[in-house]
Amino acid sequence: MAVAKLLAGPATAAISAPTTAPARAKPVAAVSLRNSLYAGSGLRGFAPARRGAAGMARRGAAKASLIEPDGGRLVDLVVPEAARAARRAEAEGLPKVPIGEVDLEWVDVIGNGWASPLRGFMREHEYLQSLHFNSLRLDDGSFVNMSLPFVLAINESDKAAIGGSSDVALLAPSGDLVAILRGVEIYRHNKEERIARTWGTTASGLPYVEKAIERAGEWLIGGDLELLEPIKYNDGLDQYRLTPAKLRAEFDRRGADAVFAFQLRNPVHNGHALLMNDTRRRLLEQGFKNPLLLLHPLGGFTKPDDVPLDVRMEQHRKVLEEGVLDPETTIVAIFPSPMHYAGPTEVQWHAKARLNAGANFYIVGRDPAGMGHPLENRDLYDPDHGKKVLSMAPGLEKLNILPFKVAAYDTSQGKMAFFDPSRTKDFLFISGTKMRTYARTGENPPDGFMCPGGWEVLVNYYKSLQAEESTPSPRTPVTVIKRLPEKIVLKPPEHLPSVHRS
Amino acid sequence: MAVAKLLAGPATAAISAPTTAPARAKPVAAVSLRNSLYAGSGLRGFAPARRGAAGMARRGAAKASLIEPDGGRLVDLVVPEAARAARRAEAEGLPKVPIGEVDLEWVDVIGNGWASPLRGFMREHEYLQSLHFNSLRLDDGSFVNMSLPFVLAINESDKAAIGGSSDVALLAPSGDLVAILRGVEIYRHNKEERIARTWGTTASGLPYVEKAIERAGEWLIGGDLELLEPIKYNDGLDQYRLTPAKLRAEFDRRGADAVFAFQLRNPVHNGHALLMNDTRRRLLEQGFKNPLLLLHPLGGFTKPDDVPLDVRMEQHRKVLEEGVLDPETTIVAIFPSPMHYAGPTEVQWHAKARLNAGANFYIVGRDPAGMGHPLENRDLYDPDHGKKVLSMAPGLEKLNILPFKVAAYDTSQGKMAFFDPSRTKDFLFISGTKMRTYARTGENPPDGFMCPGGWEVLVNYYKSLQAEESTPSPRTPVTVIKRLPEKIVLKPPEHLPSVHRS
Repeated sequence: MAVAKLLAGPATAAISAPTTAPARAKPVAAVSLRNSLYAGSGLRGFAPARRGAAGMARRGAAKASLIEPDGGRLVDLVVPEAARAARRAEAEGLPKVPIGEVDLEWVDVIGNGWASPLRGFMREHEYLQSLHFNSLRLDDGSFVNMSLPFVLAINESDKAAIGGSSDVALLAPSGDLVAILRGVEIYRHNKEERIARTWGTTASGLPYVEKAIERAGEWLIGGDLELLEPIKYNDGLDQYRLTPAKLRAEFDRRGADAVFAFQLRNPVHNGHALLMNDTRRRLLEQGFKNPLLLLHPLGGFTKPDDVPLDVRMEQHRKVLEEGVLDPETTIVAIFPSPMHYAGPTEVQWHAKARLNAGANFYIVGRDPAGMGHPLENRDLYDPDHGKKVLSMAPGLEKLNILPFKVAAYDTSQGKMAFFDPSRTKDFLFISGTKMRTYARTGENPPDGFMCPGGWEVLVNYYKSLQAEESTPSPRTPVTVIKRLPEKIVLKPPEHLPSVHRS
Repeated sequence: MAVAKLLAGPATAAISAPTTAPARAKPVAAVSLRNSLYAGSGLRGFAPARRGAAGMARRGAAKASLIEPDGGRLVDLVVPEAARAARRAEAEGLPKVPIGEVDLEWVDVIGNGWASPLRGFMREHEYLQSLHFNSLRLDDGSFVNMSLPFVLAINESDKAAIGGSSDVALLAPSGDLVAILRGVEIYRHNKEERIARTWGTTASGLPYVEKAIERAGEWLIGGDLELLEPIKYNDGLDQYRLTPAKLRAEFDRRGADAVFAFQLRNPVHNGHALLMNDTRRRLLEQGFKNPLLLLHPLGGFTKPDDVPLDVRMEQHRKVLEEGVLDPETTIVAIFPSPMHYAGPTEVQWHAKARLNAGANFYIVGRDPAGMGHPLENRDLYDPDHGKKVLSMAPGLEKLNILPFKVAAYDTSQGKMAFFDPSRTKDFLFISGTKMRTYARTGENPPDGFMCPGGWEVLVNYYKSLQAEESTPSPRTPVTVIKRLPEKIVLKPPEHLPSVHRS
């Protein structure tokens, strides 16, 4: 049984395994993986400490127990249930703007308040502040962090169709109307400038740019967002997509007095686990009584050679099942944001979003949100810049930044350990590339690099990829593995607790 | 007699015309221009209102009469006279770092406190804040604006020569030691990232990049700057290079209750003048009794097709002589910064520097610090972004931003007038390119576009260029007209008033 069930409390029904095949079901070899993952058995690894009905009293309060959301109040842009029918009818009569898969992920992200106090896609004054200052000034003169431009691109014909209408309806790739954008402002989409200022390069081959900007329209449309329904992905993982309000409610319910968030888009190896466990130990030493870990894998767009979300989720589950992380003090949930791979600019967003979700400690890694330069044989960003920029970022003063201690495989101990520069030779650094090579060739990494169950998940995944690659059809390259929503289901989430709508 | 003389007060000697030929003297055709400019006669246009010795009481106070400098105190990094000999001896014994012409301009700019509270070339934490946030956080948690990275590049062999020394001496192109940089920190110069984040493009052909970055070293060196002497350019214009402290003293001496700064790198036409005069009128209407205009041409590096500083200074003088601007309420001085042509990023610097010099109002133009895209047939920046970004920039809250009203030639009135969109057809926009074409072909612009004396200066300048271009020698292309220091003279500025050194 999954986190969502437990969040919903004893009175609600368990969420059943998905009956429709999730998006990634298409590659046949991967089905068995997913089935074994989400069949509803053996999920004790995810089970948070049960506190009984008493703990539920606070649920739905979305209160800032540990840290205030930016702007003082968590943004929630989902139309209240009672108003949905009328709002949908209104939307049907508005000019319709088609949006892409990644845009839809942003609708979800903004709509649920991860980007609080932002209430929609950026208008130009917000866009310019984000681009130049990585922050927004509020009416009271204070700043909130806002490092990525959350913008929606439209093309010339969309613009013409909108005409003078101040409100438009957003049409998902599935053909469903998903939101209204009100009081719209349309301004030029200078892609070159946006890319240069966001990534610090305009080199071709940036994954997000290729996916969501290159072919996007030449105009941006900003406005206030209203979601006609909560976004559902129907990939068997929706129960892990906890909104900031739900996470805050859960932290309250569990009586956390500190929450430390760990953003990741990769499998968890024992070095990560060491760091997370060490962080908890240090927080206890500092006097906290109940620090909780928010293990928070990114669930939106990732580049094709990253490990897909469903595989990562299964791997994370094994890590908890096998006790590498303590299920009693860990909450696993999905952060629905797409990935920019914009290094120091993006890590601010990753931290800010977790602040909004109620985490008051944030672990920042080496080269966070980084990648190799798309054209040159070097890291795109200085691996130390992420944590430096994050520690100085306007609007993040109230968040405690915990720099990542580097762990590597200590051959003298036969396990992952914090790197000791006095005995460099003892340490083996296993890069992502090396890890993939191990998994692909079926070779085992050194004992103690990763828990066996987690490792098996990866090996099976890479085997399934190889199986795909060896099929004669050129129509199924690795890059078309879809992890993005195929269809939006607009049913209300009956099995999830209701939360306060501000 | 020049501004500097009047600043120095009745008791000091007049600054004589330069006896050595200034840098731009080489092109023969231009000499007559310069001679007529700076021969010491007919300069009443620059003469500020005389207030007698009483007004001098406050000179040298460098106090924040109208607006506090950033950080609360104006930075002055010139070694006090009594300590210079010893400091120079120390510098001789330090590792020597060669710097370029543009670097030297920055030494001047930073050393005289235009960039207060910055006390030297940026260390990495300052560089990163500038690049990502366009601002620096001070110890008290407040922000000052800092939109351009003020950095000094060195190459691998410089770095090796510095070794572990914490202090280095800076060696100007002339071979003179000009400054010490203390407590140095050396970090990577990622040119691509610096350029992308500063300009919002990495297109080749950006003038500052070509001049000062492309061939610069792969490392940056930050540290605290100490100037061994004030920088002199010896181009006949040094008396107009008033430091922020001197400008503040002059504003005080003249009893200004408002100072509005106008940054420019182009000749002044009557549309500019209309705007400046209108600004003064509005300030008087707002109740100010003695608003002064700081007409503040940029004097550092400019691109080859811009009008050179000495020609511009002569043109400005004519504008005052012929009464287009009121010499009684105008102060003309040179802003020694090099030009980045970085649009919305740079305009913040232009405004911030004037704030430090004591101006509490700043006129922002259309497309400030902008230029055409080097590769595409469009403006590099949205012409409205400059004023928008400036109005929202962190750290510039206390500065009053006055948006530029567009003036154009009103054919119905036969003069420059504020553009009236209700009768578009009456207005003729005379672009810089068009103006240059007029001047080059000897054709006159419409009457009332520019005062006749000012226009003549430009015509003569372009004639001189054509004369150069028609000479058979390929060794004197337009682009080698040097307006940058050839030699640093380290004599103390005897004729200028001493100022408080903080």
